[in-house]
Amino acid sequence: MLLRMIYDPGLAQAAYLIGCQRTKEAIVFDPERDIDRYMKAAESNGVKIIAVAETHIHADFLSGARELAEKVGARVYVSDEGDSDWKYQWLDKRSTGGSYDHRLLKNGDVFRVGNIEFKAVHTPGHTPEHMMFVVTDLGAGATEPIGAITGDFVFVGDLGRPDLLETAAGVEGAKEPSARRLFSSLPLFLNLPDFVQVWPAHGAGSACGKALGAVPQTTVGYERRFSPALRAATSEKSFVDFILEGQPEPPTYFARMKRENKMGPRILGSLPKPIPLTAEEALRLDPRSSVIIDTRQWDMFQAGHIPGSLFAPKDSMFSAVVGSYVGENEGVYLVVETSCTEDAVRELVRIGLDNIVGMIDRFTIDKWAQMTGKGAKIAEVDALKGADMLDRREAVMLDVRRHDEFVEGHASGAIHVAHTRLSAELDRLPRDTPLLVTCRSGGRSSRASAYLQRKGFKVTNLAGGMLAWERAGNVMKK
Amino acid sequence: MLLRMIYDPGLAQAAYLIGCQRTKEAIVFDPERDIDRYMKAAESNGVKIIAVAETHIHADFLSGARELAEKVGARVYVSDEGDSDWKYQWLDKRSTGGSYDHRLLKNGDVFRVGNIEFKAVHTPGHTPEHMMFVVTDLGAGATEPIGAITGDFVFVGDLGRPDLLETAAGVEGAKEPSARRLFSSLPLFLNLPDFVQVWPAHGAGSACGKALGAVPQTTVGYERRFSPALRAATSEKSFVDFILEGQPEPPTYFARMKRENKMGPRILGSLPKPIPLTAEEALRLDPRSSVIIDTRQWDMFQAGHIPGSLFAPKDSMFSAVVGSYVGENEGVYLVVETSCTEDAVRELVRIGLDNIVGMIDRFTIDKWAQMTGKGAKIAEVDALKGADMLDRREAVMLDVRRHDEFVEGHASGAIHVAHTRLSAELDRLPRDTPLLVTCRSGGRSSRASAYLQRKGFKVTNLAGGMLAWERAGNVMKK
Amino acid sequence: MLLRMIYDPGLAQAAYLIGCQRTKEAIVFDPERDIDRYMKAAESNGVKIIAVAETHIHADFLSGARELAEKVGARVYVSDEGDSDWKYQWLDKRSTGGSYDHRLLKNGDVFRVGNIEFKAVHTPGHTPEHMMFVVTDLGAGATEPIGAITGDFVFVGDLGRPDLLETAAGVEGAKEPSARRLFSSLPLFLNLPDFVQVWPAHGAGSACGKALGAVPQTTVGYERRFSPALRAATSEKSFVDFILEGQPEPPTYFARMKRENKMGPRILGSLPKPIPLTAEEALRLDPRSSVIIDTRQWDMFQAGHIPGSLFAPKDSMFSAVVGSYVGENEGVYLVVETSCTEDAVRELVRIGLDNIVGMIDRFTIDKWAQMTGKGAKIAEVDALKGADMLDRREAVMLDVRRHDEFVEGHASGAIHVAHTRLSAELDRLPRDTPLLVTCRSGGRSSRASAYLQRKGFKVTNLAGGMLAWERAGNVMKK
Amino acid sequence: MLLRMIYDPGLAQAAYLIGCQRTKEAIVFDPERDIDRYMKAAESNGVKIIAVAETHIHADFLSGARELAEKVGARVYVSDEGDSDWKYQWLDKRSTGGSYDHRLLKNGDVFRVGNIEFKAVHTPGHTPEHMMFVVTDLGAGATEPIGAITGDFVFVGDLGRPDLLETAAGVEGAKEPSARRLFSSLPLFLNLPDFVQVWPAHGAGSACGKALGAVPQTTVGYERRFSPALRAATSEKSFVDFILEGQPEPPTYFARMKRENKMGPRILGSLPKPIPLTAEEALRLDPRSSVIIDTRQWDMFQAGHIPGSLFAPKDSMFSAVVGSYVGENEGVYLVVETSCTEDAVRELVRIGLDNIVGMIDRFTIDKWAQMTGKGAKIAEVDALKGADMLDRREAVMLDVRRHDEFVEGHASGAIHVAHTRLSAELDRLPRDTPLLVTCRSGGRSSRASAYLQRKGFKVTNLAGGMLAWERAGNVMKK
Repeated sequence: MLLRMIYDPGLAQAAYLIGCQRTKEAIVFDPERDIDRYMKAAESNGVKIIAVAETHIHADFLSGARELAEKVGARVYVSDEGDSDWKYQWLDKRSTGGSYDHRLLKNGDVFRVGNIEFKAVHTPGHTPEHMMFVVTDLGAGATEPIGAITGDFVFVGDLGRPDLLETAAGVEGAKEPSARRLFSSLPLFLNLPDFVQVWPAHGAGSACGKALGAVPQTTVGYERRFSPALRAATSEKSFVDFILEGQPEPPTYFARMKRENKMGPRILGSLPKPIPLTAEEALRLDPRSSVIIDTRQWDMFQAGHIPGSLFAPKDSMFSAVVGSYVGENEGVYLVVETSCTEDAVRELVRIGLDNIVGMIDRFTIDKWAQMTGKGAKIAEVDALKGADMLDRREAVMLDVRRHDEFVEGHASGAIHVAHTRLSAELDRLPRDTPLLVTCRSGGRSSRASAYLQRKGFKVTNLAGGMLAWERAGNVMKK
Repeated sequence: MLLRMIYDPGLAQAAYLIGCQRTKEAIVFDPERDIDRYMKAAESNGVKIIAVAETHIHADFLSGARELAEKVGARVYVSDEGDSDWKYQWLDKRSTGGSYDHRLLKNGDVFRVGNIEFKAVHTPGHTPEHMMFVVTDLGAGATEPIGAITGDFVFVGDLGRPDLLETAAGVEGAKEPSARRLFSSLPLFLNLPDFVQVWPAHGAGSACGKALGAVPQTTVGYERRFSPALRAATSEKSFVDFILEGQPEPPTYFARMKRENKMGPRILGSLPKPIPLTAEEALRLDPRSSVIIDTRQWDMFQAGHIPGSLFAPKDSMFSAVVGSYVGENEGVYLVVETSCTEDAVRELVRIGLDNIVGMIDRFTIDKWAQMTGKGAKIAEVDALKGADMLDRREAVMLDVRRHDEFVEGHASGAIHVAHTRLSAELDRLPRDTPLLVTCRSGGRSSRASAYLQRKGFKVTNLAGGMLAWERAGNVMKK
Repeated sequence: MLLRMIYDPGLAQAAYLIGCQRTKEAIVFDPERDIDRYMKAAESNGVKIIAVAETHIHADFLSGARELAEKVGARVYVSDEGDSDWKYQWLDKRSTGGSYDHRLLKNGDVFRVGNIEFKAVHTPGHTPEHMMFVVTDLGAGATEPIGAITGDFVFVGDLGRPDLLETAAGVEGAKEPSARRLFSSLPLFLNLPDFVQVWPAHGAGSACGKALGAVPQTTVGYERRFSPALRAATSEKSFVDFILEGQPEPPTYFARMKRENKMGPRILGSLPKPIPLTAEEALRLDPRSSVIIDTRQWDMFQAGHIPGSLFAPKDSMFSAVVGSYVGENEGVYLVVETSCTEDAVRELVRIGLDNIVGMIDRFTIDKWAQMTGKGAKIAEVDALKGADMLDRREAVMLDVRRHDEFVEGHASGAIHVAHTRLSAELDRLPRDTPLLVTCRSGGRSSRASAYLQRKGFKVTNLAGGMLAWERAGNVMKK
Repeated sequence: MLLRMIYDPGLAQAAYLIGCQRTKEAIVFDPERDIDRYMKAAESNGVKIIAVAETHIHADFLSGARELAEKVGARVYVSDEGDSDWKYQWLDKRSTGGSYDHRLLKNGDVFRVGNIEFKAVHTPGHTPEHMMFVVTDLGAGATEPIGAITGDFVFVGDLGRPDLLETAAGVEGAKEPSARRLFSSLPLFLNLPDFVQVWPAHGAGSACGKALGAVPQTTVGYERRFSPALRAATSEKSFVDFILEGQPEPPTYFARMKRENKMGPRILGSLPKPIPLTAEEALRLDPRSSVIIDTRQWDMFQAGHIPGSLFAPKDSMFSAVVGSYVGENEGVYLVVETSCTEDAVRELVRIGLDNIVGMIDRFTIDKWAQMTGKGAKIAEVDALKGADMLDRREAVMLDVRRHDEFVEGHASGAIHVAHTRLSAELDRLPRDTPLLVTCRSGGRSSRASAYLQRKGFKVTNLAGGMLAWERAGNVMKK
């Protein structure tokens, strides 16, 4: 048996290529949309992708399953559990016109790729149709599983959050029943032997859980003993309380991903190649009709950016930021280094932002800056000045941290909206009063400030965030 | 750490004596009422019983917890989970007048006896207040559990049946919610490491499950892999279906046990010593005012028994038979060999039949037989003659097997009442038509025939039961 | 599958009856010589013994394997590993004349009884030919073992001692190679899954190890984690050092057991029934030609015993004491309560002392005492008086504790011989100087004193032993 | 805890970066010499490398431990077990002049990096000083290990070969004692819990074992059950036989690696950057004074290469080929695509071939070919023609497959030398008779042919190897 984890650090997402070395056939679990990476991994390991499977309908990225079905004719294995809201409509011929070779799986269904056996185990909770795949290497004569593709059911040191149906998709009252369903899925994991490897769909940093560990994979026995979520499962109630507490606010684009993954993501073909703009062309850009995503560092951004630009440096927050601040059909221009362009494009198409029109490299933006004077800049103050503004009622504070951070201590009178939820809460924010935007250390608030400025709010970024705020002697309220 | 299983083969019941060899203190889990056995085991192992615990309110025997509290001042550890119907009322001072040293346990509570730690884990299903006790041998420096006292939660190859509230106590609609509660208790067992020993409260033959194995104990890992009930737990639904299917009909005395165990069983003190009767005294016995339990083999019983006697040989069915056929306050006379008397008395008091007035030994019953002629005899026919009776409508067949046996194949027109449920279903039986009583091989039907004859029915026992019936060429209906 | 442990508390020895409930066939592992107990257990569980197996050639009791082969025609399964010194000669037709159905097992050999599979795993160390039997319940559909009959290889919290070839049989230089062989057997145990039950041949108190636990059985995973001997196996050297340290001196009869178990123990048939003596007959007993074993308590013994009697109360030391002090062909008379006679006889025949001529019950010995005056008594002094004797050089101290107790602290000038080795070391003891015999608390020294007195030494027992000695303020030397 | 495997597919070698997320400190296990990759991984995960450890003295590559000690001041943790032949002499100040912060580890030694604990377990076999590191994540509150860095002790589905001391370094008679030492190390692995992750130093394709699996990591429990090598450990003898059978012939450079890793590999600093040659410069190359390594595919190579070139395409055999055919001080020229140059250079320096003088890219070699006519070509025949050559005695066959392949079937009269051993066996080959070089399918023989041609032998490559040979109807001899 051959196994390769293909990891996307941007979304902390793991796909798995599993192949049979005898028959040279392979399957991919939970691919993202830019499937060339899986095909390359297959080729360099001497196997051919003949199948693709999904653990569940993803919320944080567009699936590459349809892309693989279309491009290499991979047979599609997906869940047929869950109610009618949770069906893969793109596999229904009437829906997409096309006809894909596929098999809809019920709990307990078994299929093989080469001499490797996969057993689908229905494990609702994160989503109602979620499947775990238990893998047995029959070719090597094994009589017990080698591992389990656990999707968003079990992570390293965590479980997949069961609240998204409510917190991301807005179905009120859904999170407790989902948490109970997750509890009732636990025996299906705990039934597995200690030595079974756990291959989860996400690593540290994913918004699909609250405390994922930074070791790439784990084992059933280790989780059984040391997973805080499993240790909290001393009763249904204590488990539900634990699992729903402290989950981060999901980015606003999650709801859209669910919908598109059900309907079938658009066939991508090859990666979009944004056209490099000249400085003159950059001058003519209208930020109202298109979105300029500036991926440079804060000091560069503040040294002068195209007015109306979003601030989104290429780090682990990139997907969540652009996913939360950019609409699905908006035309996108990237301010980015040439060598990083492909990587940024991949991150955009993974969350369905395909309309990437052009890019502006470092030299061009510098030239643009020279041509225009200095460009735009976001107002920024230190904690002393910020406190003064609040005292004088010249601003209200907008705290964009997570709810669990906020309740640990915040400034009196602060409005709280997590930065990933801003686009859904703009109506709650005052347009007449200036906003003093803050977070923990200034990272999220700077991204939020640029976004709000673009949306017409009056903003001032609080440099250093609440860490600086507290250091400056301001009182924190719990 | 010291551990001794004290096993009662009559009820297939296991109590456990666990002691600390350093402090010489010990605790007994799930004692039966004749506690001298536990005290003797403690003494011969050099420890003193200072505590007693119960996994749950038992249905199949009277608990010895109160007896130990009374006699040796043992501290009582019992569950405080479950609703108000499932509280140990005898521990409430107002209820019994007495005041026992005790601690009511909530899920997760921990206590020690010597250097041994016991953690109470609330595992509802069999009963709503059920506790499992996880045992860690701190004295030996262990950092993980050595075993779990699983009570009627997990047996060897089976789980405790969740249907008794409905099938034994008559609470309609209770069995499915109970089965679901049992399902939600599974993670608490499956969370334990593979190597943990499982010390269950029952072995093969108990009516508290349907398929208990004949190996005295098991391990978490072995059950995780091979327990049919756990393997059926692929979803809540499939588990509920599996666990409720094929459970044997509970003996009628179960309902009474629950009640008495809550209220507090009467203090026994020492074992009743039935007075040996002379043949003359035996002649004067009136079976209407007292119950004569004849423990001899069938051929001896048929050679001549005191009219109105119950037939209850001293085998593994004894408790279920007398528990189902004898009322709690009836005066009992035993026809029994002298050397077996104590053993029979123990079995009776364990299910609360304390009113054991006298005993008649082998010589006396023989003498009685000589004095009276031959004594009574139950009518019995072979399959050929039996079929003839049905054809001529001279009798209707009464099939006393379990429901799951009955549906596998029975005679057309047969009435079905499990032998353990007869006393609750007498009204359903015709008093004018003779009953041809049958079971699988004739064992249960002979016991039932004697009981029904005592109750005034016209009975004929079908020798050889349905095995003989089928061999004789009679058609079996499914 | 059916499993019953049949435990002999005298030798802390466990035999196992394992049966297949479908075919009603059973096998016994490591039976002792009085096999009626196994046959009774088989009968009451509805199975028939068709086979018998041994884990190894026992040193502490005579095997019942030949007895079962002879009496019920059981097929014999024993090891064919180890060198020519470790062969079952009684299975060789030329040796015993008889011909027993048997199979000699090599490492890895597999056999079945009913639907249960047994795999013989050669695990030298305790003895060179030692086998562990790994048990798989094929009838129940299991694909992995349920347990292992570990014999004297793995105990609860200990391993079988590898030094007996040297310390009991006198083969110099043998214990370190044996310890290394034991080390090289460890992977065969550690290869088993955590959840496998461990069914050892001995429990707490056995002389076949140094630290056996008082829980009847264990699991592979628990031993893997918490067995001190396995934890010491961080290298071959550290393991060898650990396992050879602190082993108790073996009783002298061990060497004889090995020899007889190889040659084939004499067929016992039924238990010897010693003839009750009258007081007059007791008067005529000559302790020189036969051995009188007085099983009463010390105060009764000292109140007057037949001169030359051994003192051997019926407790857990009984076998070791009589095995060390009585020669194999000596005629034995028991001073014992009638109700305990059978039990004492069993213990004697288990170690090959079959020549049990007569018994003297409590009433008879009392009558004898009245007839003779008071009978004999062993001289005894307290610590104060004892110290005085040593000071005046009226006696030398003989310390009969284990070596590891002795080195922890003893009286200056004390001779050390473990009480179980006395018969082999009589030449080392002075016959002219009186011996002040001591142990820890006076138990072993009282037994040794009676033996030495019988052997013609001048003895005084130190009441209360070294505990009293130290309390009295005497200096202890390390 | 943070864990990243940094994998080198060329040598199938895995290094591990393990960091503590609280203290931001990290350690690298078994780095290769080009350490920039580890530093980059550390940086992108926000940790700083403060320590480096080695499981053993490697034979297949030069260690990067000294490089890390020199460049970032990492503290060095290495084994102090094994005899004087197996000491890290470069850590001895007198030897290298430099002084490195280090700790020499004995079996059982424990150290920490941040809140992560590492326990060194001496596991000789592959090498005498080999250490396994057991990792416990104390920071996360774990009381049991999360994983083990097993080095060349335990691989996925295999164990590290114990024969190299004999087969690579030429110490006769060493392989059996080493195999026995490996056997005695097994308990130290088998003692670990099932759920512990196994992080080995090599993956599929490594010459450090014979059957490594293609799943990147495994678990203790899975290996316990399914590793063929562990399953063969039913006795020391059967294990030794199994582990020594079928091991591939080690490349000749292995002996040199051991020596250099002990003495301390030369400090590399930065990667050598070979100078691009012009076609004119290429024309002047003298293959006698330097080695030309042609990394193109066979058809390109045969279309015309610089006479005397080695044929070594950039695939998984590259390291073994150049390691076996190039001497340590020879000047190297690469014929390679520009974009692949760095990767090829890395592979060379990893095995100590630092003297990389120049490179010739695709365009230059094409130009060279045009300038010189066609360039050189290795004679090649098909199976029919080859058989004819042997029949006419115009050539003798040289079979360069592994020994275990050869004995499965070969041509009568064929000489056998594994291709990785050729440089050590040149004296055994005839210089007057032409060699018909063959392997399984022609891959290894083409590499060997170019090497032998360079060394002055008359060679003809058998196209298609023995697969074609057999298909052509030639008899195979076993």
